[in-house]
Amino acid sequence: MKELPSSGSFSVRWHHRVLTCRDAFTDSGAELAQLFGDSSSPARVLCVLDGGLTKAAPALPDRIAAWAQTQSDRIDLAGTPLTVPGGEQAKNDRTVFDQVVRAIHDRRICRQSFVLAVGGGAMLDAVGLAAATSHRGVRLVRLPSTTLSQADAGVGVKNGINAFGAKNLIGTFAPPWAVVNDATLLPTLTDRDWRAGLSEAIKVALLKDESLLIDLEHAAVALQNRDLDVMERIATRTADLHVAHIVHGGDPFEISRARPLDFGHWSAHQLEQMTGFRLSHGDAVGIGLMIDLHYAALALGGSQSLVRRVASCLQSLGFPLCCDAMSDHDRLLDGLERFREHLGGAMAITMVTEPEHSQEVSSIDRDVMRQAIELTVRRGGEQMSRTG
Amino acid sequence: MKELPSSGSFSVRWHHRVLTCRDAFTDSGAELAQLFGDSSSPARVLCVLDGGLTKAAPALPDRIAAWAQTQSDRIDLAGTPLTVPGGEQAKNDRTVFDQVVRAIHDRRICRQSFVLAVGGGAMLDAVGLAAATSHRGVRLVRLPSTTLSQADAGVGVKNGINAFGAKNLIGTFAPPWAVVNDATLLPTLTDRDWRAGLSEAIKVALLKDESLLIDLEHAAVALQNRDLDVMERIATRTADLHVAHIVHGGDPFEISRARPLDFGHWSAHQLEQMTGFRLSHGDAVGIGLMIDLHYAALALGGSQSLVRRVASCLQSLGFPLCCDAMSDHDRLLDGLERFREHLGGAMAITMVTEPEHSQEVSSIDRDVMRQAIELTVRRGGEQMSRTG
Repeated sequence: MKELPSSGSFSVRWHHRVLTCRDAFTDSGAELAQLFGDSSSPARVLCVLDGGLTKAAPALPDRIAAWAQTQSDRIDLAGTPLTVPGGEQAKNDRTVFDQVVRAIHDRRICRQSFVLAVGGGAMLDAVGLAAATSHRGVRLVRLPSTTLSQADAGVGVKNGINAFGAKNLIGTFAPPWAVVNDATLLPTLTDRDWRAGLSEAIKVALLKDESLLIDLEHAAVALQNRDLDVMERIATRTADLHVAHIVHGGDPFEISRARPLDFGHWSAHQLEQMTGFRLSHGDAVGIGLMIDLHYAALALGGSQSLVRRVASCLQSLGFPLCCDAMSDHDRLLDGLERFREHLGGAMAITMVTEPEHSQEVSSIDRDVMRQAIELTVRRGGEQMSRTG
Repeated sequence: MKELPSSGSFSVRWHHRVLTCRDAFTDSGAELAQLFGDSSSPARVLCVLDGGLTKAAPALPDRIAAWAQTQSDRIDLAGTPLTVPGGEQAKNDRTVFDQVVRAIHDRRICRQSFVLAVGGGAMLDAVGLAAATSHRGVRLVRLPSTTLSQADAGVGVKNGINAFGAKNLIGTFAPPWAVVNDATLLPTLTDRDWRAGLSEAIKVALLKDESLLIDLEHAAVALQNRDLDVMERIATRTADLHVAHIVHGGDPFEISRARPLDFGHWSAHQLEQMTGFRLSHGDAVGIGLMIDLHYAALALGGSQSLVRRVASCLQSLGFPLCCDAMSDHDRLLDGLERFREHLGGAMAITMVTEPEHSQEVSSIDRDVMRQAIELTVRRGGEQMSRTG
């Protein structure tokens, strides 16, 4: 076997740009338009909106059309905004993916043109996959519209849809052109969706920044009272830690290493599947963190006081700590293998023992994990009996 | 608008490895197995075969199974090889894509496991998209089984399927783990498929290496007589020039620039579409080269003797220089706009005026292009009346 002389290595450079603003399409409208390029010729932009968002904010499509008009030296809106279903159903089949690919084709969006997607994490995942694969990649600007997507997936470099019963089976790594976190998209969220980003905030705080955990503990009342300034601060800090991991962590496309940012997620993903996504991702992550913190305390000498501290914090933010599906230990534990398969290679689960102290474990003692699940359920049950 | 402190640039490094061998699964079997990793634990491998190939070489699946058995310290074959349809139908809908994604899921292929795809360019494109998007990318080893795929697309970093009537509408850039060009896969090809890689060889010779053009001119009789050594030499040189462009050309994912390697392809793609893919890609590229060489001679002062030289070379290799669809100038010229859309941005067509001398043009004089089409048809007609 002979290697061609020209075989060799090459690098591709990406710029990952995440910004924050308020009132993206009005007060920040000029700055938003500038992200799409210079004013020599307007950028062609297909706008895709999350149906859940437009239901809560029916004036949004008109606001976007008005923005495009005032910024017409930079923005050439390709038809009226396309509204697609939001929530997990956006990525549970190929309907949204196909709608967006077809619109990219019909409305003549090319590799130098843009998709502007405004919505929650699931919708951004499906639209992102369509943008990343149409013409092998058109430019994507994301405006995540939930606390969860502003703190976590919406500011990352991945997309995906579910297939054959497997979460995110089909997807790519595709850095967006830009991400804009607009806090003024958040006030219409339900309570469940309002808190959803906060379990991811706790996760990243446990992994990387205890001061964020302290901030969350102190801010619980304000957050329960839906203080937008506080939420914006928490989401921005969480997003920044997430982006730092991607930009400075050395393996943005997860080629060689497992994913520390998936702490607590093996059980969260499995519980979402088991409940047919009735359990939200935010709530599932809260439970997932508790299970793995209990495990770390039982099996790895992790801090017991940290377990109590995080449980209190989650509860004060309104998170449930148990759900019925947790009684099926066997099926829940199957999530470990599913998680390994999706990441690939040997098992590698990140466990936190103290704030900012984590380790990767390559095997899980299933009996101890059952105990961890039970302890999480017990604490959750106490909470329910106190509140119920 | 405020940028997050962690926003910034990152690079991802890829290794693009293309090798040549004979009898990959027997004489070169040990070296092939070594590509899949070290012998500490065998790599899990899903093998996908082109149905056109297994029809011509029915012993291939057994040969691969035997190879995996003798290399069992390195190779863990995930079930019997999956055979999928080859040819353009492989990428004209999502059947093959879905079959492969489902097999990756069912047979537990993870991001550290492999898909080994053996087949022609269209099949490799569809299987490659499935591999690149399943779990956001499992490792792909390609064995292109045609002269066209060994010389051109099979050694590149792209994949794609057609959708909504548009060629390669859905695809990604995804460097394969390795590509192995095995000349012993070629002798069963039909005459049309045997010559198909040679128009791409002429293309790359015109752009980058006149000595390859001279080699092709001298080798015409041997190639018509199906001399495998000569074909291997031509395909290897063509592949090497193609890979050099990717690895050393500075824009492997075509983010900023148009594609010089698409010389002659705007009309080739359109003629394939217009004929419902009855015209092969190889034959279409031959015609496409002639059209653009004529255009360059008429509009850009290109060499007339080069036009005659390439026409003679194509004809001596058995290529037709015209087809019925060329009489519909308007529809053929629509291919210019389709091509621009797929690449994105302003029109940028590469034109060759002398060997190794090309220029990018940003507009096309449609009347002159009609003449160029007519001149190509006329030469092709003379050829047909001489041979018919």
